[in-house]
Amino acid sequence: MKKTRKAKTLWKTRPVELTRVRFRGGFWEKRLRVNRTVTIPIAYEQCRSTGRIDAFRLKWKKGDPDPPHIFWDSDVAKWIEAAAYSLATRRDPALEKKVDHAIDLIARAQRKDGYLNIHFTVVEPKKRWTNLRDWHELYCAGHLIEAAVAYHAATGKSRLLDVLCRYADYIGGVFGRGRGQKRGYPGHEEIELALIRLYRATAERRYLDLAKYFIDERGRTPHYFDIEAAARGEDPAVTKRKVLDYFQAHLPVREQTTAEGHAVRWGYLFAGAADVAAETGDRALLAACRKVWRNVVERRMYIHGGIGSTRQGERFTLDHDLPNEEAYAETCAAIALIFFAHRMLQIDPDRTYADTMERALYNNVLSGVSLDGKRFFYDNYLASQPGVHRYTKQKGPVRKEWFGCACCPPNLARLLASLGRYAYSTSRRAVYVHLFVSGEARLDVGGRAVTLVQETEYPWDGQVRIALRLDAPAEFALALRVPGWCRGADITVNGRHERTDLRKGYAILRRRWQSGDRIEMEIPMPVETVRAHPAVRHDCGRVALQRGPVVYCLEEKDNGKNLNDILLPEHPDFEVSTCASGVLRGMPVIATRATRRDPSEWKGRLYRLDETPRVECAVTAIPYFAWANRDEGEMLVWIRQSE
Amino acid sequence: MKKTRKAKTLWKTRPVELTRVRFRGGFWEKRLRVNRTVTIPIAYEQCRSTGRIDAFRLKWKKGDPDPPHIFWDSDVAKWIEAAAYSLATRRDPALEKKVDHAIDLIARAQRKDGYLNIHFTVVEPKKRWTNLRDWHELYCAGHLIEAAVAYHAATGKSRLLDVLCRYADYIGGVFGRGRGQKRGYPGHEEIELALIRLYRATAERRYLDLAKYFIDERGRTPHYFDIEAAARGEDPAVTKRKVLDYFQAHLPVREQTTAEGHAVRWGYLFAGAADVAAETGDRALLAACRKVWRNVVERRMYIHGGIGSTRQGERFTLDHDLPNEEAYAETCAAIALIFFAHRMLQIDPDRTYADTMERALYNNVLSGVSLDGKRFFYDNYLASQPGVHRYTKQKGPVRKEWFGCACCPPNLARLLASLGRYAYSTSRRAVYVHLFVSGEARLDVGGRAVTLVQETEYPWDGQVRIALRLDAPAEFALALRVPGWCRGADITVNGRHERTDLRKGYAILRRRWQSGDRIEMEIPMPVETVRAHPAVRHDCGRVALQRGPVVYCLEEKDNGKNLNDILLPEHPDFEVSTCASGVLRGMPVIATRATRRDPSEWKGRLYRLDETPRVECAVTAIPYFAWANRDEGEMLVWIRQSE
Repeated sequence: MKKTRKAKTLWKTRPVELTRVRFRGGFWEKRLRVNRTVTIPIAYEQCRSTGRIDAFRLKWKKGDPDPPHIFWDSDVAKWIEAAAYSLATRRDPALEKKVDHAIDLIARAQRKDGYLNIHFTVVEPKKRWTNLRDWHELYCAGHLIEAAVAYHAATGKSRLLDVLCRYADYIGGVFGRGRGQKRGYPGHEEIELALIRLYRATAERRYLDLAKYFIDERGRTPHYFDIEAAARGEDPAVTKRKVLDYFQAHLPVREQTTAEGHAVRWGYLFAGAADVAAETGDRALLAACRKVWRNVVERRMYIHGGIGSTRQGERFTLDHDLPNEEAYAETCAAIALIFFAHRMLQIDPDRTYADTMERALYNNVLSGVSLDGKRFFYDNYLASQPGVHRYTKQKGPVRKEWFGCACCPPNLARLLASLGRYAYSTSRRAVYVHLFVSGEARLDVGGRAVTLVQETEYPWDGQVRIALRLDAPAEFALALRVPGWCRGADITVNGRHERTDLRKGYAILRRRWQSGDRIEMEIPMPVETVRAHPAVRHDCGRVALQRGPVVYCLEEKDNGKNLNDILLPEHPDFEVSTCASGVLRGMPVIATRATRRDPSEWKGRLYRLDETPRVECAVTAIPYFAWANRDEGEMLVWIRQSE
Repeated sequence: MKKTRKAKTLWKTRPVELTRVRFRGGFWEKRLRVNRTVTIPIAYEQCRSTGRIDAFRLKWKKGDPDPPHIFWDSDVAKWIEAAAYSLATRRDPALEKKVDHAIDLIARAQRKDGYLNIHFTVVEPKKRWTNLRDWHELYCAGHLIEAAVAYHAATGKSRLLDVLCRYADYIGGVFGRGRGQKRGYPGHEEIELALIRLYRATAERRYLDLAKYFIDERGRTPHYFDIEAAARGEDPAVTKRKVLDYFQAHLPVREQTTAEGHAVRWGYLFAGAADVAAETGDRALLAACRKVWRNVVERRMYIHGGIGSTRQGERFTLDHDLPNEEAYAETCAAIALIFFAHRMLQIDPDRTYADTMERALYNNVLSGVSLDGKRFFYDNYLASQPGVHRYTKQKGPVRKEWFGCACCPPNLARLLASLGRYAYSTSRRAVYVHLFVSGEARLDVGGRAVTLVQETEYPWDGQVRIALRLDAPAEFALALRVPGWCRGADITVNGRHERTDLRKGYAILRRRWQSGDRIEMEIPMPVETVRAHPAVRHDCGRVALQRGPVVYCLEEKDNGKNLNDILLPEHPDFEVSTCASGVLRGMPVIATRATRRDPSEWKGRLYRLDETPRVECAVTAIPYFAWANRDEGEMLVWIRQSE
């Protein structure tokens, strides 16, 4: 035990490698096929047709239209990363050729000194590194690094990785505490977690050190963003208006206890901070990660796993402030939360992390893309009223083909393409099953090959069948997550009930496993009525319907107008049936009875002293992530219930 | 009867002149004293200290700080108008001297051609009349005209009136359908109603014609705002982003059927349109006024009489879209609604107009100023959560000492200072009592002097005693408004119950009146639970407490946090008692019992499947207009009720 305590890293488990997971049947095979065959090609086509890829040719000149934007590099990088994950699990020479072509342009765009950024090479070459706060150079660098690592892992080709190592080395020269270096850090975090990936891919300690530097330097006084603004000759009053907590730069990272500011930045920062904490054995940093984690999941997270309560600054606001119609809950922010959760989970196999990952995945993330894979939500409301978005400047209740600020679609594409990594972790003596996904995983458990075959219709059905294939019998623990949303699961091994330890939400089956052993897990999936904390003022007197990990919603299409007037009885009966046709085919829908008022009884009156009678009505709820795939109309997650 | 039909104007009654009403005792004497002794002096001091008055000296030069803003003239004008009303009912030589001094500066600021505007004389002299859409020249002119008319009526001094007649004549030369004239109309309406007042003060028909021109021209194609933008060389794309309905210029006024755009502009426009319709006998225009009126009171008005559902554009949105926390409900908009209502009421003595006037007055308008008269709300929310305003860009739940855009405080001051005019109307054969206010009114009923003395504690008590004083017995109808919010009133004349006709909400007492006749009206004032139409999604399952015309609210100060979790029972018992001390002294407060959850039972959980028990609690509601006069905290108008 002493040995463990002295171990340098804090990792308890490592996620399975992507190439070792194959999805077969069930919920995900089709979704991932749509991602591969529809969404990733769209991401490419958008990058191509908007000139983002060609921009790496650096041909843009002053006076030309459409100057390359400071985000463009990152859009291409995320497409490459998504393509890499796709290639890792399924060869596709045509796709690989496209990526190689883009990589060729990127490599040629690198400056002699290693610098690599379109905008600050052709549009504002004199402004390189002059505004880390608002411009996105380090952010773009981070995404290019992630793409390089992913593409190298998928194909073995090292050209992009070499380019990005040079860029990272150059960045390491520019930033740091040495003489002549800038003590800066990015306004939009991302490079921290990317550098850790580069460190793992290359085993070059200097990348870990640079990531650690960015984490450590952040939020120190005097504030670098102020110093930098003064150097630009900016009016301090203008700088003051930029709130440091928007950038998570109000305090050193170790001293932060609440989740503040722009939600995507926050998630990327703390994913990187968890990485640095684990790699360097930094328990103080890990403690800060745990604190902000708790603040989010106990006070600042929507039921669909979304974070960021307001469009203004795309940011966190206050504890329990979770407005539904005005929610921001950016798709990227839910993805960033998953990144953070996934890292924390490897440090501490506690279901709080996997439950949250799953919550965000099946709800906020999946809602970010239409069922056909072609259209995208940037912000993911939990209630919607047609027409009002014209007046609120929200993006509105119809998924868009693309966005000018196009962060979400390729982010979603890369997350889904790499989903396998999130399903399992292993340590020397244990296999953790975090997600229930149909398919096969070839795992390494302390040097022994263990193949685990899951069969399940999860999340539509709670029955999970797992078969093990081993070269030889082996002793290890199989840890199955018992989701926090269920009231208990039933587990059998080879048909016999097993008494299991429940540790941090995982049922631990420890035995000498034989090839052919079969584990069955039955997770009851009744329709649950979920309540929110009394301080969540928007949800008082309301329940959300959840079945398994899937949050449901009402749509006008099924229920008519005035969804907020619908009142569930105190003890509703729910019937679940599978939708037989249309775009929702195959999905369980929930039917129940409720009451509502008849607006025609109001005859033009807006207010009245006497109440009109409530009449009974049928109500149908559909999975939240599937909303807005039919006609535009009202939508509601939190439904009123009689008290 | 034929004679009436041929009458040129559509006025059925005329409002009492301000000088003929004296407030004594009851609710208003004190409020109006605070307005006179605190708010009007503050308005002056703000105009003075911010340089708004001195700006009329036209000393500002390029390079000087604080260039006079395009609204400044109107702020000074509204102060003068408020001061004029105050002087009309109570001499104050010191105040009159201040006004005369300001008028002297204004008169000297007039250009030779009659033009009179600070900003476009000293800051951008070349831009005169080049952007009616966004700049406020005609708006400022309108307010100066109103000030001139009011000051002339109050003091008999004609200097300002002469100046403004010259300015109006100059404007009449610039705008119109003649050769060389601009076919423009204001982006911010106000001059229309002002010109009607000028017409009545001077009997010069050309001012009526000019008002009618502005009303008639508005919204015609090709759109003047587009023509003007093209003349400025503006990119049509930029112009397109400006939505014509924001300015009520999307359609000719006669063709408008819904209330659209900026709520204050809308109210001023339709107040002016009602004036023009009545003065010119234009029934088509009157029909449009009625249509938009109905659209507002049946679909787009808050229970506190506020209009304008969103901060974005300070505007109307959609039918039944009345968010509470995000309400805009600008103080000026409620005042504008009162202006419109007051004009419609003279055309058609229907209580819908007086009820709405009263609703806006006792709730949204009074909430616009603190009880001590020193601080002001611009936007008047119906629910408030401390802290969230930092993230929503709302002005927040604390009244401010003043505003950069200072329209509301002096607007409120002038409305309150002229309140007498809203209380009564007369025709040749009738006296209408619209508002129940303690004091004396010397009325002219078809040439006969009728003095009406009201004694009442309204709105705190529904008993109204009216005594008549006449030189000689006279036959006329006394029409007493029976408020729409009450279920019926009890009326006696000289102690005897009278059977009365109820016509459009007015109890008509027609008889030969003697001096000394006493009328008593008992309007029951139980606490009512008011419901909103089922399509008002923010109010479903909720009730507002109203007693008399006064809407109540819950404040954190009395009820603790998490007001939204409070649940009234299906049949609540209410107890009303008079507050004995503190800033609310003398106000009836409402006590009742409700239930709420105990947040401590949640132990850090944000969502849960099982409900926690509700515990009984005491609840105290205070008049809405009095909120935010104690500690900052939560506030809620629409309270959840068990169903």
